[in-house]
Amino acid sequence: MAKYCFGIDIGGTTVKCGLFGTDGTLMEKWEIPTRTEDGGSKVLPDIAATILAKMEEKGISKEDVAGAGVGAPGPVRENKMPYAVNLHWGETDIGQILGKLTGLPIRAGNDANVAALGEMWKGGAEGRRGAIVVTLGTGVGGGIIVDGKLVEGAHGAGGEIGHAHVADDIHDPCGCGNCGCLEQVASATGIVRLAREELASGCSDTKLSADDLSSKNVFDAYKEGDAAADRIVNRFAKYLGTTLATYACVVDPEVIVIGGGVSKAGQVLVDIVGKYFRDNAFPADKETPIVLAELGNDAGIYGAARLVLG
Amino acid sequence: MAKYCFGIDIGGTTVKCGLFGTDGTLMEKWEIPTRTEDGGSKVLPDIAATILAKMEEKGISKEDVAGAGVGAPGPVRENKMPYAVNLHWGETDIGQILGKLTGLPIRAGNDANVAALGEMWKGGAEGRRGAIVVTLGTGVGGGIIVDGKLVEGAHGAGGEIGHAHVADDIHDPCGCGNCGCLEQVASATGIVRLAREELASGCSDTKLSADDLSSKNVFDAYKEGDAAADRIVNRFAKYLGTTLATYACVVDPEVIVIGGGVSKAGQVLVDIVGKYFRDNAFPADKETPIVLAELGNDAGIYGAARLVLG
Repeated sequence: MAKYCFGIDIGGTTVKCGLFGTDGTLMEKWEIPTRTEDGGSKVLPDIAATILAKMEEKGISKEDVAGAGVGAPGPVRENKMPYAVNLHWGETDIGQILGKLTGLPIRAGNDANVAALGEMWKGGAEGRRGAIVVTLGTGVGGGIIVDGKLVEGAHGAGGEIGHAHVADDIHDPCGCGNCGCLEQVASATGIVRLAREELASGCSDTKLSADDLSSKNVFDAYKEGDAAADRIVNRFAKYLGTTLATYACVVDPEVIVIGGGVSKAGQVLVDIVGKYFRDNAFPADKETPIVLAELGNDAGIYGAARLVLG
Repeated sequence: MAKYCFGIDIGGTTVKCGLFGTDGTLMEKWEIPTRTEDGGSKVLPDIAATILAKMEEKGISKEDVAGAGVGAPGPVRENKMPYAVNLHWGETDIGQILGKLTGLPIRAGNDANVAALGEMWKGGAEGRRGAIVVTLGTGVGGGIIVDGKLVEGAHGAGGEIGHAHVADDIHDPCGCGNCGCLEQVASATGIVRLAREELASGCSDTKLSADDLSSKNVFDAYKEGDAAADRIVNRFAKYLGTTLATYACVVDPEVIVIGGGVSKAGQVLVDIVGKYFRDNAFPADKETPIVLAELGNDAGIYGAARLVLG
């Protein structure tokens, strides 16, 4: 029985790496830079080198390693990516390339999906077989877990939670090219959009200033009872809570986990999103718990490590 | 190797029964009445009796039967139902009761989910591993298939496709108790609702009459170029197509199948729903095929038979 596995989370500037026990214990974590020059051709060799160096440093043989899991920024299907814009990659067979360089079994998945798997393994959805994990950061990402496995989808686009159409009155395009996506109203930048609209409506009952808008400032004002912040947060929560209720109609999860920078607002965010979720959820789902993510930036390495454990 | 399996679809008035080859060949189908008196206590014994009688008639031994699958009207979790209103059942362990009465392996699932599985096995989604199957009848039901399996959900409420919240301006409750569900605007009765609203708005450019509204009449008029029918069908299709696009963000299916009575409108329905689907779908899903269901009322027995084949 293998005792170790590696979890690798490839970001646009750094690659996060973790050495795990197969029981899920994080034994060591470190980072290396993501060298995107030369069409990103150095990224996977750099990862292979740091894995092999760590094994040598620790005196770990290949037989003791279950494999290395990789979270990568973009669509992944059967351990391959058709492209990865942030890494300057064209079609890249992560499984084959890293497998050849390391001699280890490799599994790869979309980074947001993989982070969701991490939360299921050792975070807010620990021990659950079905979960919706939504990450509210610059964008809105996440992952859907059914029967203990990530929903990868026919095009590697399972769990593209941020791209539900929720608003007919948004006419500038989302990153995906459509208009009116959840990401445009429920990400950190989406909350700033809603705040700008609120301030532009000429409201005077607020301490928020158009010069210093952020998701954090909006939630801070909301906690202090600011009337405009209350309207902004309610709009955000209605979009997100209603969409989560729709998603729950599809997968009927055991738990919904909310993570990402916006979730640092804490329990007040869960409470207000939960209100709109319960208003619109199918009866069987109204009591589905909504919880905060627990692993923060480590969710990706945890989930990547979990990938190789099948 | 077992050569046969039974597919049983329990409806409120009749139980549809099918004897299948394990390769999916429907060898014989028949119906028995659903006797809901006495708290529905006769339903499962009647089913056991008709299965055993068919085996005797055909000279089939238990060893030759892989099992009997059952589609039942209500939530099903691990072959048990907490209740089934139409059958007058309280908590009912279908697997245990039918297993004891027949001596066969039993698997049970929600009827709409099971019909979806039938379409995946031998119908519009044949050979696909991931599908959204939506049934537009009196209500809106369906099933979600991920990795070749039905999504059952934490409360047996996976694939409750009809209960996405889509309309804030509907204030009378859906059967589920919420207001503004997809079912209230995209079922046969939902289309009549939209038609009534259109006619009540005082439009004169139509041959539709408030005295004779049906989903069929609306689609017939639509095919003839009726202006009001065009507006009604477009409203319906926008609700349905947009919701299907949202569902596709979650599961990224290989195919979307539309069945049920409303789907008898045919290719024009697929075309107009597809238009709104593509307007709102995540780019990777825009070309996902939308097709008509193929098995009609037999989808339930096909899917039930498929259930026991694992």
